[in-house]
Amino acid sequence: MRANNLTLLTDYYELTMMQGYFKNPTDQSVIFDVFYRNNPCGGAYAINCGLEQVIEYIENLTFSSDDIEYLRSLHTFDEDFLEYLSDFHFSGDIYAIPEGTVVFPHEPLLKVIAPVIEAQLLETAILNIINHQSLIATKASRVVHAARGDGIMEFGLRRAQGPDAGIFGARAAIIAGCIGTSNVLTGQMFDVPVLGTHAHSWIMSFPDEYTAFKTYAKLYPDACILLVDTYDTLKSGVPNAIRVFEEMREEGIPLTRYGIRLDSGDLAYLSKEAYKMLAAAGFDDAVISASSDLDEYLIDSLKAQDAKINSWGVGTNLITCNDNPAFGGVYKLAAIKDKDSNEFIPKIKLSENTEKVTNPGNKTIYRIYNKSTGKIKADLICLADETFDESETMVIFDPIDTWKKTRVLGGTYIMRELLTPIFLNGKKVYHSPSVMELQAYCRQEMDTLWEESKRLINPHEVYVDLSQKLYDLKTRLLDEMGSENLYDDQEFF
Amino acid sequence: MRANNLTLLTDYYELTMMQGYFKNPTDQSVIFDVFYRNNPCGGAYAINCGLEQVIEYIENLTFSSDDIEYLRSLHTFDEDFLEYLSDFHFSGDIYAIPEGTVVFPHEPLLKVIAPVIEAQLLETAILNIINHQSLIATKASRVVHAARGDGIMEFGLRRAQGPDAGIFGARAAIIAGCIGTSNVLTGQMFDVPVLGTHAHSWIMSFPDEYTAFKTYAKLYPDACILLVDTYDTLKSGVPNAIRVFEEMREEGIPLTRYGIRLDSGDLAYLSKEAYKMLAAAGFDDAVISASSDLDEYLIDSLKAQDAKINSWGVGTNLITCNDNPAFGGVYKLAAIKDKDSNEFIPKIKLSENTEKVTNPGNKTIYRIYNKSTGKIKADLICLADETFDESETMVIFDPIDTWKKTRVLGGTYIMRELLTPIFLNGKKVYHSPSVMELQAYCRQEMDTLWEESKRLINPHEVYVDLSQKLYDLKTRLLDEMGSENLYDDQEFF
Repeated sequence: MRANNLTLLTDYYELTMMQGYFKNPTDQSVIFDVFYRNNPCGGAYAINCGLEQVIEYIENLTFSSDDIEYLRSLHTFDEDFLEYLSDFHFSGDIYAIPEGTVVFPHEPLLKVIAPVIEAQLLETAILNIINHQSLIATKASRVVHAARGDGIMEFGLRRAQGPDAGIFGARAAIIAGCIGTSNVLTGQMFDVPVLGTHAHSWIMSFPDEYTAFKTYAKLYPDACILLVDTYDTLKSGVPNAIRVFEEMREEGIPLTRYGIRLDSGDLAYLSKEAYKMLAAAGFDDAVISASSDLDEYLIDSLKAQDAKINSWGVGTNLITCNDNPAFGGVYKLAAIKDKDSNEFIPKIKLSENTEKVTNPGNKTIYRIYNKSTGKIKADLICLADETFDESETMVIFDPIDTWKKTRVLGGTYIMRELLTPIFLNGKKVYHSPSVMELQAYCRQEMDTLWEESKRLINPHEVYVDLSQKLYDLKTRLLDEMGSENLYDDQEFF
Repeated sequence: MRANNLTLLTDYYELTMMQGYFKNPTDQSVIFDVFYRNNPCGGAYAINCGLEQVIEYIENLTFSSDDIEYLRSLHTFDEDFLEYLSDFHFSGDIYAIPEGTVVFPHEPLLKVIAPVIEAQLLETAILNIINHQSLIATKASRVVHAARGDGIMEFGLRRAQGPDAGIFGARAAIIAGCIGTSNVLTGQMFDVPVLGTHAHSWIMSFPDEYTAFKTYAKLYPDACILLVDTYDTLKSGVPNAIRVFEEMREEGIPLTRYGIRLDSGDLAYLSKEAYKMLAAAGFDDAVISASSDLDEYLIDSLKAQDAKINSWGVGTNLITCNDNPAFGGVYKLAAIKDKDSNEFIPKIKLSENTEKVTNPGNKTIYRIYNKSTGKIKADLICLADETFDESETMVIFDPIDTWKKTRVLGGTYIMRELLTPIFLNGKKVYHSPSVMELQAYCRQEMDTLWEESKRLINPHEVYVDLSQKLYDLKTRLLDEMGSENLYDDQEFF
């Protein structure tokens, strides 16, 4: 059922192009950048995620004899090329921004420097992995933010787009701050908390709701969250739950983690009424958990209504990022090494929309923090060999509306380079942190964003500028392209 | 990286409930139905998909010693229960509607009859698989319909929600009528056509566009679709492509499958202009392929504008079903076998919304076709032991607005039972067709739908009725529940 080897998880055209490069040997190294153009869900940031799986994909990149046999059967590939593939391994360099980092549009999240025949193969799988996990981590981060400190449980496996979407989506959700997942396989694979209690079918399998609750409470007194909406939440579910909690109290069973789950109906009203009933019986510290097609907007609205909910299970809308189900990361050629000079020649991909023109050359990113607050001032995309002196005053400017300038005074800021070496000459030089370590790192990262950039609607955008050198290079390449008159002049107007 | 065994691909609460059933042995068999409530994307049907992967999941359902060790580490499960799990295998019956079948809301797509402890475990993975593949098959079917006979190529791997979403999404897309996929791994796993030519990076790796095209044409004269929008579609791309085609013609190379691909800009205008240029050079049979954030609505609009496009590559919006990224299938308890009488006692799950109340009992579905046109008249959900006589006149009625009745005259209709045995007593009794066989079957299935039910906007809904016996049973159970006064009386109004 499941392919263990993801080497063929690639678009067919990567292989036809590879054979083209093989037959017309250039041996030239190239640079490809992974970046995205728009933040998901109308937000002002994304959470970069998926690097650990990209690393594993590249480390396991080998064409098995079955793979070669399959490719031969397509009658498109010659034996010498298949021979080459059977010995294939990645020999290049990869730099990437660590997982859990807050990132912004146009920044290279990952950079591949390798012979073009190798770099081309990686495109599809790298995009698939990073696009998926960054999407879900970003959505989860929004949901976590909306809950204002309450725990978010990831419950989406049954609605995820296939097993991997459930497995790695839950991983991404936990990195972004969810306290656990219902997905047991993710728990096993990544050593993260697994959560959940029972379904309506449990209640319906017993002669009555009280017996179902009582049986569950006896089994799991330490994690006794009872689902109260199978018949009637306020007339049956909550009273039966209170009866069980009272009996536990009478029997001297410590009520550690106990409470109710609401899975339908008017959650604001029901939670307030349920809280009153629980509090009147002396159970005002009970968990009141809610689930039912939740997302960041509904949670925000329930918080604004003072709903008495302190634990949230979020499924479908988180695990599919329902309002924006694709991240839109792309893999674009940025430079080609010249055979004679051995220097990288920057390349640019045109577009009628200036904002969509790619940034050329071998680049890196510096994040500029305010030294006293620790908050992000701006990000600066620059050429990889540029250096900066934090004691000097720097003028940064908007790369589209260049008259919008900001002076950053020397000594008031700290710079941090975001791209980190992951592979050098095909060898892994990076150790992935555990998922729970990444969660702690991501929490710190969120603290570097202003609240204004975290709000759900119309957030303040963070500046992503180009260094003067990169801006000048891009402008020169655009002018050269423009003078060759290569733009479409829109003859139909 | 990838788990081979999906046994732990389940919600944690399935396992806590299982231990509950284990500790309170009932040994009772139950019936769970998988069904959905709303057709995706505002359509009037869905394409059922994913059964082959459900079968493989169930056949491989065993807890490895690593799985047991992991569950032990959670300090929630007792040794006797872990012992039981280590010997676990599915011993029940499964009935399902074959993949590629047109289906409608409320119909049991799959029915599990098994001891409750076993049936509970299956819930999450079955829903994950069927929800994903049925979603993508339904979306793909809409896209294929919009293209009015042109080929649709599935190109979404890089934007799919993880590897499986790409692999099994492409499988579902092909079942629903896509002519092939860019995903090489899907090609290998399911023996389906793989497609694609080259990317912008290919063009940019050569000194100029003509050289890039020429090199490609020499390599792949049989599948020479040239991407013409890297620099300027009409001033550079199309003229260079025509030059290459003319040279091939002069050299006597047969132009079999050749043409251009448009990946940006105004596809209606560009395709018409490109066609004029190609036709003027004697290449009016060239493929004009388009890709660029397409979906069924854009393709329909381009068709309505007489765009000269005859081949379509559809990526992100198909592989994520962007306007409706979750299918919403649920797994609901329908009956419990009584220990004493050994009969199934029907169960019903209430909801304030009458349409959301589940259908109780052990059920099946008959599809009623018009004998002369072969089109679907209606579906009838009934109890599994009901029989019908096609020579007899039948009155069917809407299960909500019961006064809406239709008389179907004896001899004018044919009935077909949709649910098929898949597992009996834990043994597989069904052989999955190949993906290309399923594609052919699905094409026949689409022919049984009226055009009015296939249109993209405001389609005509197909009747799904209940048999008189099932309707009476449901009404009786609802009345019984109602007299116990279990409805929420909305105290806040």
